[in-house]
Amino acid sequence: MPDFAEPLTRLIQEFKRLPGIGQKSAQRLAFHVLRSNREDAERFAGAILDVKDRLGLCSVCNNISEGEFCPYCRDASRDPSVICVVEEPHNVLPVEVTRTYTGLYHVLHGAISPLRGIGPEQLRIKGLLDRIAGGGVNEIILATNPNVEGEATAVYLSRLIKPLGIRVSRIAMGIPVGSDLEYADEVTMTKSLENRREM
Amino acid sequence: MPDFAEPLTRLIQEFKRLPGIGQKSAQRLAFHVLRSNREDAERFAGAILDVKDRLGLCSVCNNISEGEFCPYCRDASRDPSVICVVEEPHNVLPVEVTRTYTGLYHVLHGAISPLRGIGPEQLRIKGLLDRIAGGGVNEIILATNPNVEGEATAVYLSRLIKPLGIRVSRIAMGIPVGSDLEYADEVTMTKSLENRREM
Repeated sequence: MPDFAEPLTRLIQEFKRLPGIGQKSAQRLAFHVLRSNREDAERFAGAILDVKDRLGLCSVCNNISEGEFCPYCRDASRDPSVICVVEEPHNVLPVEVTRTYTGLYHVLHGAISPLRGIGPEQLRIKGLLDRIAGGGVNEIILATNPNVEGEATAVYLSRLIKPLGIRVSRIAMGIPVGSDLEYADEVTMTKSLENRREM
Repeated sequence: MPDFAEPLTRLIQEFKRLPGIGQKSAQRLAFHVLRSNREDAERFAGAILDVKDRLGLCSVCNNISEGEFCPYCRDASRDPSVICVVEEPHNVLPVEVTRTYTGLYHVLHGAISPLRGIGPEQLRIKGLLDRIAGGGVNEIILATNPNVEGEATAVYLSRLIKPLGIRVSRIAMGIPVGSDLEYADEVTMTKSLENRREM
């Protein structure tokens, strides 16, 4: 006896391919689609295809872009002398929402991870070096994630770029604002002490 | 400055309409679709539309069905004298995987919930009464969920069906198998004591 009708089983399989979606969640989502009306399903399916059809990567910074250049690279009011290096396109938003950063970005599309077989050659590092070689860059801010892979990537890039005479900085790691010392893990607390500032 | 490119923002909105998916999850899912290849996206979009195009409800039990009758209602080896009443189509599977139930189903598509403005008239109860009136039904097993709405629905149906001379039963509530009394809430523990069986 089949568990679910074939089209439903197939949609459940499709949802299960998404990150963080297991069998139960996939079932719940598929049943939601089944209950929704035809127009909603069409809009959803259309949005999936549109993302593939209309979006590409910025030819300068590898951020997601509708045309050749992303909004940041197109924007003449941004300061081209500072480049913030992030792992993935979605890491741009957390920096941008601070409204304090006015420089440009460079998206690596990954981080060095020997365990997953990802070396520097798989990352978009050459484009970054080309931008630096093009001149006018004063500082590279390394905003890769504060974990083993992100840290390894930051160290690698720092060793590569510093000899070029460019200032290289790393985002601070410490206790989150509004948090409580009680909930800080020991590695974060250690970083927080190491990075202490004079008041 | 736009946060994300427009097609990406639109896909994030679509994912956010799904139950249990918030902004962060929707972003993660949309970026996954963006990174996947075109064929994967096409298959995903196709599965969404197929579910709407190819599936309907069984004309007998309201379960999801590719044709007029669901696999259970089509199956001559199932016992038509017992009907298990569930709230939603996805509630059929947990009963079915026990491999101990050989009767048929009836899907109400909801439960009585005065708070959400759902009364008995919104549920597919008439079809169940028609099936009983058609004859040959000996027992109705009420497998609505063990919460306030499911319990209210069970009580309502019981009062409706018992006077017709049909045996009406309710699935047992108690401590889950493999669990520990320590983790049982007091309502479940009370039910478990109430429903105790001679050994």
